[in-house]
Amino acid sequence: MSQVDIQDDKQELIVEAALKRFAHYGPSKTTMNEIADDLHLSKALLYYYFPDKASLFKAVVDRILNNYFEEIECEANHAKSIEKTLLTLIDVRHDFFMKYYNMGLNRNIIDCTEGSLDEIIYNAIKRETIFMKKLLTKANDKGEMQIENPLEAAELYMDVMAGVRFSILTPNTRSAILDEDTAKVINRKQKQITELFIRAYRSIN
Amino acid sequence: MSQVDIQDDKQELIVEAALKRFAHYGPSKTTMNEIADDLHLSKALLYYYFPDKASLFKAVVDRILNNYFEEIECEANHAKSIEKTLLTLIDVRHDFFMKYYNMGLNRNIIDCTEGSLDEIIYNAIKRETIFMKKLLTKANDKGEMQIENPLEAAELYMDVMAGVRFSILTPNTRSAILDEDTAKVINRKQKQITELFIRAYRSIN
Repeated sequence: MSQVDIQDDKQELIVEAALKRFAHYGPSKTTMNEIADDLHLSKALLYYYFPDKASLFKAVVDRILNNYFEEIECEANHAKSIEKTLLTLIDVRHDFFMKYYNMGLNRNIIDCTEGSLDEIIYNAIKRETIFMKKLLTKANDKGEMQIENPLEAAELYMDVMAGVRFSILTPNTRSAILDEDTAKVINRKQKQITELFIRAYRSIN
Repeated sequence: MSQVDIQDDKQELIVEAALKRFAHYGPSKTTMNEIADDLHLSKALLYYYFPDKASLFKAVVDRILNNYFEEIECEANHAKSIEKTLLTLIDVRHDFFMKYYNMGLNRNIIDCTEGSLDEIIYNAIKRETIFMKKLLTKANDKGEMQIENPLEAAELYMDVMAGVRFSILTPNTRSAILDEDTAKVINRKQKQITELFIRAYRSIN
């Protein structure tokens, strides 16, 4: 095992431990000390890998997003139709947000404070749009849909999916973290829109 | 003319004058003094009608929204099809936001600061949803569309229209006032979604 591999392993372990703490207690209630203790690491060594909590938090969010993309790609490979795929993805997204509720990922998106996650989340949306374009192209090829411009349709679909999240937030809930009831309403609306979207693009054959 | 009528007239004149100033210079760059001067009113009399700038601003926004509803109702009465109606309404909304650009109406919606407009805008969205429900019901009756639950469809459509506005706001533009280019992108996306919406609900007959 090379020095680089050992370093990568250590970094991996730190991200895993931090993910557990962040997900359970939330980033604001987690200290670097606690993460070091969980791993029986010296604080100095922890700071060698991650100079501050913000950089560790970013690495954790990156990890979570990678897991998310692995999961949706796997689901897409196994679903039988484009309709089933899109509806399943809505549930995966819902479960994902609920699982990492305490991470404040949703809050960050709708917050106006200087959000260090902005770029990560923006890139994730771009990545999911490309993924969506592939799904629609595949549905086109299979004759399930008739879409002239799959990228444009994917962008539109992603805009609408993300948009629903914001538009149902009334004045009272706007800056709050998404609660479970609101998440359920969003989930239901996203499914209704998906059904419309599919109906609109359904092949005439 | 009764005392009440005269009072109403005066109030009306103040709102008209304030609207002009607010729309041109923006609320933050308009003073109560300037509005009083425009009307050759004493400051005391102006404050008799509106105890502070915030209450006058609310009255102006109320007026603008009433004008908006009058306009969309008129457009809806004259358009030949539901498709034409919905597409026209998007342009009316676009022009309306651009006309009152300096009022910061858009900013207020996406801002996290304590927004006194929250309730007014929330009510306006509710009012437009009811209006939309009527349009869809009419389209149903004319056989243009086949919608089982027009209120649900109207809510969904309104969510999506509002949502697009938020979802295309990237990290860099999120808390800024909507600029004209962004407004054009939103306008285009809203029309694309409207076409999909209509196609999905189009009557089979």
